[in-house]
Amino acid sequence: MSSFLASELKALGVEIELRYLGKQEGTEVDLPPIILGKFGNDPEKRTILVYGHYDVQPALVEDGWDTEPFKLIEKDDKLIGRGSTDDKGPVIGWVNVLEAHKKAGIEFPVNLVMCFEGMEEYGSDGLEDLVKAEKDKYFKDVDATCICDNYWLGTTHPVLTYGVRGCSYYSITVSGPSADLHSGIFGGMVSEPLIDLTHILSKLVSPQGEILIPGVMDLVAPLTDDEAKLYDSIKYSMQDLFDATGSQTNLHDDVKPSLMARWRYPTLSLHGVEGAFSAAGAKTVIPAKVSGKFSIRTVPNMTPRELDALVFKYINDEWAKLNSKNKMEVKLLHDGMWWVSDPSHWNYEAAKKATKSVWGVDPDYTREGGSIPITLTFEEELKRNVILLPMGRGDDGAHSINEKLDMSNYINGIKTLSAYLHYISVEPATST
Amino acid sequence: MSSFLASELKALGVEIELRYLGKQEGTEVDLPPIILGKFGNDPEKRTILVYGHYDVQPALVEDGWDTEPFKLIEKDDKLIGRGSTDDKGPVIGWVNVLEAHKKAGIEFPVNLVMCFEGMEEYGSDGLEDLVKAEKDKYFKDVDATCICDNYWLGTTHPVLTYGVRGCSYYSITVSGPSADLHSGIFGGMVSEPLIDLTHILSKLVSPQGEILIPGVMDLVAPLTDDEAKLYDSIKYSMQDLFDATGSQTNLHDDVKPSLMARWRYPTLSLHGVEGAFSAAGAKTVIPAKVSGKFSIRTVPNMTPRELDALVFKYINDEWAKLNSKNKMEVKLLHDGMWWVSDPSHWNYEAAKKATKSVWGVDPDYTREGGSIPITLTFEEELKRNVILLPMGRGDDGAHSINEKLDMSNYINGIKTLSAYLHYISVEPATST
Repeated sequence: MSSFLASELKALGVEIELRYLGKQEGTEVDLPPIILGKFGNDPEKRTILVYGHYDVQPALVEDGWDTEPFKLIEKDDKLIGRGSTDDKGPVIGWVNVLEAHKKAGIEFPVNLVMCFEGMEEYGSDGLEDLVKAEKDKYFKDVDATCICDNYWLGTTHPVLTYGVRGCSYYSITVSGPSADLHSGIFGGMVSEPLIDLTHILSKLVSPQGEILIPGVMDLVAPLTDDEAKLYDSIKYSMQDLFDATGSQTNLHDDVKPSLMARWRYPTLSLHGVEGAFSAAGAKTVIPAKVSGKFSIRTVPNMTPRELDALVFKYINDEWAKLNSKNKMEVKLLHDGMWWVSDPSHWNYEAAKKATKSVWGVDPDYTREGGSIPITLTFEEELKRNVILLPMGRGDDGAHSINEKLDMSNYINGIKTLSAYLHYISVEPATST
Repeated sequence: MSSFLASELKALGVEIELRYLGKQEGTEVDLPPIILGKFGNDPEKRTILVYGHYDVQPALVEDGWDTEPFKLIEKDDKLIGRGSTDDKGPVIGWVNVLEAHKKAGIEFPVNLVMCFEGMEEYGSDGLEDLVKAEKDKYFKDVDATCICDNYWLGTTHPVLTYGVRGCSYYSITVSGPSADLHSGIFGGMVSEPLIDLTHILSKLVSPQGEILIPGVMDLVAPLTDDEAKLYDSIKYSMQDLFDATGSQTNLHDDVKPSLMARWRYPTLSLHGVEGAFSAAGAKTVIPAKVSGKFSIRTVPNMTPRELDALVFKYINDEWAKLNSKNKMEVKLLHDGMWWVSDPSHWNYEAAKKATKSVWGVDPDYTREGGSIPITLTFEEELKRNVILLPMGRGDDGAHSINEKLDMSNYINGIKTLSAYLHYISVEPATST
């Protein structure tokens, strides 16, 4: 994908640099290159940095896909395949924007700086270092940043996104015997790591979603009246949630607390267990070493180190209560900060006008429950406003099976990105 | 292996029948044949049924073997290779017993009936039906059964085994959304199946191994003084357990409660979770449907249906307490009954004398913590005593890497099997 993308951009006149950033942490695997590109160098124009990623989540037909995940299918006005919406579709959207201007012979309204990475799904390994190193070099002229790597809240109404939650991802590893044991022979004689792990995992969060780690909720910024009002006009219904999840397993009965749980409160999810029996069928094994994986989505004003301290202390305290002879280690696997921006900036004004001109409606202003740590990095390092301008819909199935991007979102998305750049070229500077 | 074994036996004068029992359940794969054999038909002699299996566990060099698993190596007085101890070695041992008598020109002391199957490692598919169908036909003259398919308790002292635990294997499946969800987007909005499952699994058994399902321990036969005494003389030390598990994660401080936990009390083990994230690394998924797997090893006087009733009721009660909108289903995946025999029977007396004459010591009387369901089938259907007379040691690594059979156990094992048959020919009937 990286060489295809680079050559497409080169053919459109973009100056390309591939940055190889060494090995993936803890491995001997080369990192995929970050593709940097520049198009235009006119001091009279604003310079916009656009970001996307060309790597994708894993996918196997066996996971339940209706089609081969790595073959793009066009069906029922949808583009179906891994990466269609997250984030190959939007990346190609930028290529289309350049291509359309070239074919139509229209002058490009801004100087474009591109940054397309290949490690987003693994924590954007290397990108933060690159942004820091290049903030006064490659990125020095950037006036604002546009990230096209999230989704509408629902399926019908376009949005601009001014905040994301952070994410701190942890593992709890419990180990005992030197190798897996037969449960017939050793069941009842030895302390089982998976039993211990299950007890610890059950202490983290209630079935109603309450985080049971003391102190975590105390880190959350209080809800102000102004902020509470923002939630009143959002076009979202409980039916949207039911449709998106294919179930009625909602934790909250109303839209407002549901959206607040997604955007402005921390949540704790359990993801799985590594090292235990995970196949179909029945295997009578006592796994020797198991790792439970969980993450906490973070919000203002939590800091990762404060959270780590609470998490580590609580899990170690709970472990001590188990009185087990096994060994336990809790580790932070990765973290990323939350980000909240200023939606009255000209960057947002331009996107709002572009949305109105293409879709005929004013966008909703949303936050993301998910994490895009690089958003914060761009804003903090470049000291320039960042907008998240999504192309896909809330039911696209990013990270899931049968990932799709609606054709209308793809085509109108390209138009919106183009219009956004044109409005940027005429938008006055923000007074605030 | 089946045609090799059949032709070896034929060459020694055994009448062979190969029984093909159709397809493997749920597949189009032919079952490997059960090899039935008869050697001798003297009404003055006792008729002994010997059982073994010629199929083995899977093995790959990549699993960590020091040698090619399917090439038998003789090294350091050990036979190393998949099946050396489980159970090709013992099966070939019976062939050697016949061969030795033929070469030495000694009259065979009993009529031998052989039953060597090829599906033991997959639940002995088909064998129970065959035993039931042939109990008054092929097996009608059988006076006792000898199964050579387990191991010494430790590494130095021969044993006779008079009991095995049963096993009831369950799954608890929790499902919510129609597909896996992104924890950033839906974390905090929906009820997570893995959180619910973890809470239920943590209610099954304590880290100290106590089964938390009410009523289960009430099904266990009380410990009598006589039985308790049996444990006093067993040659086993805590160090044996530490060596076998490569750890000091014992649940009990002494040998006696450790062996009782293994042999005469039920235990509950957690095996794993199907459907959750199980790979290395960090995936921010909310799994849509997860199945926890656990099993309970059963002992006298538990019956599978009584146990099921307790398990289902408890899990449904605990589920109701969670107040979750997800769906939960608990299922029995398979079960097999425990078996305990009469170790004062002439079948055991003959084996005890054979052991003493070959090894110079009285055997320990042990049970197995694991399950060999076919043992019970032979005893119940044929109404004749069954003995487990193991050839290999407790550290042979059946089902593991670098499986071995010590040469001394192989040679003395053949001698013990021969002597056992000779003692059987002169042992008086058991009075009890």
